Amino acid sequence: MSRETDDLTDVMDAEEDLEDLALDDDYALNPEFVSDVADALDRGDAERLRELLAALHPADIADLMGFLSADDREELIPHLDPETLAEILSELDTEIREDVLEHVPSATLAKAIGEMESDDAADVVDDLEDDKRAEVMAAMPELERAAIETTLRYGEETAGRLMQREVVAAPQFWTVGQAIDHFRKDPEELPELFFDIYVVDPAFKPVGAVPVSGLLRVGRQTPLAQIMEPVTEITVDLDQEEVAYIFDKYHLISAPVVDVAGRLVGQITVDDIVGVVQEESEEDILALAGVSDAGRDAGVIGIVRSRLPWLLVNTLTAALSASVIGAFEGQIAKLAILAALMPVVASLGGNAGTQTLTVAVRALASRELSAFNAVRTVSREMAVGLINGVVLAIITGGVIFGVFHDLRLSVAFGAAMIINFFMAALAGAVIPLALERMGRDPAVSSSVFVTFVTDFTGFFAFLGLAALILL
Amino acid sequence: MSRETDDLTDVMDAEEDLEDLALDDDYALNPEFVSDVADALDRGDAERLRELLAALHPADIADLMGFLSADDREELIPHLDPETLAEILSELDTEIREDVLEHVPSATLAKAIGEMESDDAADVVDDLEDDKRAEVMAAMPELERAAIETTLRYGEETAGRLMQREVVAAPQFWTVGQAIDHFRKDPEELPELFFDIYVVDPAFKPVGAVPVSGLLRVGRQTPLAQIMEPVTEITVDLDQEEVAYIFDKYHLISAPVVDVAGRLVGQITVDDIVGVVQEESEEDILALAGVSDAGRDAGVIGIVRSRLPWLLVNTLTAALSASVIGAFEGQIAKLAILAALMPVVASLGGNAGTQTLTVAVRALASRELSAFNAVRTVSREMAVGLINGVVLAIITGGVIFGVFHDLRLSVAFGAAMIINFFMAALAGAVIPLALERMGRDPAVSSSVFVTFVTDFTGFFAFLGLAALILL
Repeated sequence: MSRETDDLTDVMDAEEDLEDLALDDDYALNPEFVSDVADALDRGDAERLRELLAALHPADIADLMGFLSADDREELIPHLDPETLAEILSELDTEIREDVLEHVPSATLAKAIGEMESDDAADVVDDLEDDKRAEVMAAMPELERAAIETTLRYGEETAGRLMQREVVAAPQFWTVGQAIDHFRKDPEELPELFFDIYVVDPAFKPVGAVPVSGLLRVGRQTPLAQIMEPVTEITVDLDQEEVAYIFDKYHLISAPVVDVAGRLVGQITVDDIVGVVQEESEEDILALAGVSDAGRDAGVIGIVRSRLPWLLVNTLTAALSASVIGAFEGQIAKLAILAALMPVVASLGGNAGTQTLTVAVRALASRELSAFNAVRTVSREMAVGLINGVVLAIITGGVIFGVFHDLRLSVAFGAAMIINFFMAALAGAVIPLALERMGRDPAVSSSVFVTFVTDFTGFFAFLGLAALILL
Repeated sequence: MSRETDDLTDVMDAEEDLEDLALDDDYALNPEFVSDVADALDRGDAERLRELLAALHPADIADLMGFLSADDREELIPHLDPETLAEILSELDTEIREDVLEHVPSATLAKAIGEMESDDAADVVDDLEDDKRAEVMAAMPELERAAIETTLRYGEETAGRLMQREVVAAPQFWTVGQAIDHFRKDPEELPELFFDIYVVDPAFKPVGAVPVSGLLRVGRQTPLAQIMEPVTEITVDLDQEEVAYIFDKYHLISAPVVDVAGRLVGQITVDDIVGVVQEESEEDILALAGVSDAGRDAGVIGIVRSRLPWLLVNTLTAALSASVIGAFEGQIAKLAILAALMPVVASLGGNAGTQTLTVAVRALASRELSAFNAVRTVSREMAVGLINGVVLAIITGGVIFGVFHDLRLSVAFGAAMIINFFMAALAGAVIPLALERMGRDPAVSSSVFVTFVTDFTGFFAFLGLAALILL
């Protein structure tokens, strides 16, 4: 083996090693690799940085940006060329992206945006500060600018914003052979990747779709109209959550997007839907916990702002529940053990209510709960609430009797548990249904209401019964 | 217009009308349509049922089964042919599917399973009762049976179970033209839909992939090896959550699945991933609320079983917190207002802890939180907890002073709030990290621990401080 091949092998081995080092077994970035990048940035070692970045997929570079400190991130930006920027910009979290956009020169940015798909490009332009946006738009070719402006006219989180304008369409009367020849003649005109060819009528309305793999199945003479399949059209103004629901339900790979007149204006592909599904379920999870998304890289103040409003609402409801307890102050002074037992009733009721509410919110989101089975669902929940209440009342009542040898205390406690579990089930099922009916997002505010109901009921039922039976 | 065309138009209009009636604006089944089906079932009107079912997409028939009562569902089954069954079986929820499978004759079932993709077929066979499974498997052709048995040998929720065995592979030395000719010669051998052609070496190890749309971009003489792109291989035993993460991160449309020896054994496509993402985030949401998934059609007892265990655990922790209060019985007897205020400290701390915990669990799930930024994240959460605690301490302390004119009470309350918010932030961030580190699912049990910490701390800090300062 000659000296040169030897060297080449070494270089290739080194590259291979870097790629292996970059990610750990579950495809997350290795902390050591991130430290290596940070060290290279500190030393200003451009050569080493080039090597390290070359070992990463653009999605991993985006991840890396998330793990670096703000200073390191800023220093990394000049080392990214427009092609890499084009690939990572749509992967970055909003806050990090805004930070990155601020530090990239407008000319580089215009070049990077030109390389992106229309939906991603519009998102990036939308994120720019007004001054910079004007600069970047001015540096872009006329056609690209117009395309982005059109996309930005659609509302956020609609099909129009989610779609890419790049589609492959063919007239009804073409044959498979004509279509393939046309594509081969002008491959630059084709989107980078596509799964369906939309067959359109003379008014450019989609009448069907031919999966690309379908072209390989039949002879060149076959008319497209003969092998096309019906399409599920999506209108530009449909909410992205609805779009995701349709894709999931009908297992769509791609769908044509049409304007109000029914004309083909773009397409949505299933890979964009995975992101939407993640985003929507993330929103639900956070909303149920009373957090708005402050973003991964939000500062302390950003996070405080995202959480304090909900805590203030909870303070109000907690104060209301406390006033119930205050009304029974006399009883508590006489029998202080009531104070120790009452939070148990309230907290277990709260847990039961949260269980019901979470299941109801999820069932509403996946359309499993509707007007048709609402009554059946609510009744079933109330039955479950009663059974759980009775079981726990017997267990806890028994333990209380064992400890305090006071049957009336056990009975008051057990009865309050049953009442609170019943109310928890009722509130947990009805409140999300009512919010949905009123056109509100049931994930967002149900928790506060349900917890208030179970706290209030828990304190009132237990202290009230104790006052009646015991004192 | 002749009388006959007139009739035909009427029939077509009627069909169109039924389709319009079936779904409401947001693609959910219309309650009236479901009632129509239930009525037709009650009357035994097979003709009307055929019409109604013909207006539905298989996914909507599956939905319909979910909305029907168990009796109606059973009556509907004989009206479904094997082709329809093949399309709806993989759409049904587990409990409903088990019910349906029980009522379909084994021969029909064997035929339906033969029409399904290998992953869906295996899932259905896996759901069958032992006796029935033997019958159905015996009624299937040898090859199909072997394929299903192989799939079932992979663990649940692994890539092996998720993949379909139907793939399109081509040797490295083929040209685009050779590949297309080969596909056209034997279209029956091709999967119904495919997006990538995997290029394999003589040992059947994937060396690259050519997107089908790539074949239309270049001339027939181009070698596949020249236009192929690198692939992200997935090994058969990878967990489906990891698979979904990889698809989402790298925006994959399909990926080759390889066995331990690296040989191509199947592929996973992104449309299967949408389902996995839904499933995994559903699991997280429910786990955070302390519910295991009982399924949409579970009976009351099934639901009770899915919720009671968590309530029992919560009873234990609530009892522990109650014992803290019990220790301060003397103080409460002297100053009963303490009993009214202490749940406010505990409950607001609980809310703050839930916020932190939910954000941490999501960040862990999306790999945004790792060993690399754990310290930074926990510190940030503690800072947020302190700020929120101080803000709320000032507000609530102020209100308490306004109402009771007791500065020492206000100070005890405010100080307890700050302490509890600090502990809430610490527990909410550290507990999920610790569970993840121990290889446990942080979504499943974090809530119980965190709520226990905030209840315990809330009661202890407030009553303890009150005892020190006030009494």
